[in-house]
Amino acid sequence: MMELRGKAVAESITAAASESIKELKQKGVSPKLAVIRVGKKPDDLAYERGILKRFGDAGCDHEVFELDIACSQKELDDVFDRCNSDKDIHGILVFRPLPKNLSDEHMRKTIDPDKDIDAMGTLNQASLYAGDPSAYAPCTAKAVMELIKFYDIPLTGKRVTVVGRSLVIGKPVALMLTNANATVTVCHTKTQDLASELKRADIIVSAAGAAKMIKADMVGEGQIIIDVGVDTDDEGKMSGDVDYAAVAPKADMITPVPGGVGAVTTSILLSYTVEGAKRTLNG
Amino acid sequence: MMELRGKAVAESITAAASESIKELKQKGVSPKLAVIRVGKKPDDLAYERGILKRFGDAGCDHEVFELDIACSQKELDDVFDRCNSDKDIHGILVFRPLPKNLSDEHMRKTIDPDKDIDAMGTLNQASLYAGDPSAYAPCTAKAVMELIKFYDIPLTGKRVTVVGRSLVIGKPVALMLTNANATVTVCHTKTQDLASELKRADIIVSAAGAAKMIKADMVGEGQIIIDVGVDTDDEGKMSGDVDYAAVAPKADMITPVPGGVGAVTTSILLSYTVEGAKRTLNG
Repeated sequence: MMELRGKAVAESITAAASESIKELKQKGVSPKLAVIRVGKKPDDLAYERGILKRFGDAGCDHEVFELDIACSQKELDDVFDRCNSDKDIHGILVFRPLPKNLSDEHMRKTIDPDKDIDAMGTLNQASLYAGDPSAYAPCTAKAVMELIKFYDIPLTGKRVTVVGRSLVIGKPVALMLTNANATVTVCHTKTQDLASELKRADIIVSAAGAAKMIKADMVGEGQIIIDVGVDTDDEGKMSGDVDYAAVAPKADMITPVPGGVGAVTTSILLSYTVEGAKRTLNG
Repeated sequence: MMELRGKAVAESITAAASESIKELKQKGVSPKLAVIRVGKKPDDLAYERGILKRFGDAGCDHEVFELDIACSQKELDDVFDRCNSDKDIHGILVFRPLPKNLSDEHMRKTIDPDKDIDAMGTLNQASLYAGDPSAYAPCTAKAVMELIKFYDIPLTGKRVTVVGRSLVIGKPVALMLTNANATVTVCHTKTQDLASELKRADIIVSAAGAAKMIKADMVGEGQIIIDVGVDTDDEGKMSGDVDYAAVAPKADMITPVPGGVGAVTTSILLSYTVEGAKRTLNG
């Protein structure tokens, strides 16, 4: 069994991005990410720390726009509009979900597709759906694809079972896998016999959000298992969707949690921010 | 074996639309479809005749905007822009593909989503992808869903194998089936063992575009088979993707070609045009 660790993937993506950042700076463009955060939710702050570390190490500019939890819709939209029109900002990440009294509709409808590095925007989603290779995908979905690419895992003609149908992971990853010539089955809470869908897969991508839901008796032998779950198990520990200790011995390759897909996402944000900066040169 | 004929589905949809048209006319709104056709391609003319007949029978206004095959991009876009801004037009259908020297990009980017009855537009595709129930789906994909609904075919927890991954049928129908709680597998030309994917399905939806490709030894017993193919067989006759004569005896329910899904599409255009007119009242 080989462990598919995200660190090497992230390092490879970050190294390429760092090179591009140097080249862009020589051309007078310094890639910059804007992070918009409302309130101080611990999850958001943890993700933000990871982003700041990654961007700092790569020499990529970044600025956090913090709004008070009690901010108005207009205050939020104004900050967003300034970032969206600021020529020195090449990527915008908005921590969502927002507090319930705030809407992301204005942002989704107006975000510049070239800055839409977390694929929240309407235009970007339409491009993704249409199979436009220039579309940004949601970071975690893209992280799955980059991990597959890094470890040279072939997709053409392979059976892939995706667990989960969310717009953040399940649906975009299923689309990208289908476009990459895999035969994809999307499972979800209404799937009747999940074990049989899992057992017949060459590759499993799980984004169910339920700790240790996938047990050893639900999978086959020699599969490639990519666990996107970031769940909390009964003991309060971070766990994936897969019961790793029991399942890993049966797998050919498997991502750990933590240390798998999750370790790749901030490098995707970085590479998309660099891509956004490149587009200002080409546009 | 029960034949799933499209005629009854279309009649039911048309009857409901006719009622709505009467009510809308009493409120001073007369639903109207604009058909934009470049040149005189036989396929386009045949489809147009079907539309005019359906809309005529239902008492729904319609107007064909015919452009010469040698028209310029500006002429096409101007006609489109007039339809798009004309408050008396509630649905726009552009026969595509266009001649090679013409682009549909301006139309896709600017079409009013409420008039986008064939789901060509960017905004509408994004809504469809996001699972917005107000999104229009491509007519044939929607026809499949309406046929399933009309014949009371349950979807929750059912295994559905979709053959084809086009933006016109395969991808939108897979999305809608997933949203309707089916467990969907999308197959295509790179799928390695199509027969095994077909045999395990409760429902097969085929949009491969290859005459009689699905043979009796590739399907199971007692399945529901929905054939979206409109192909030409070796003898020059219209045929579906399914080798009907050989497969039908094994099926529980199956659509004929012609007379199946294809018979429903013009009624979808009609109901979407009526929906577009309704939205002018509510908007």
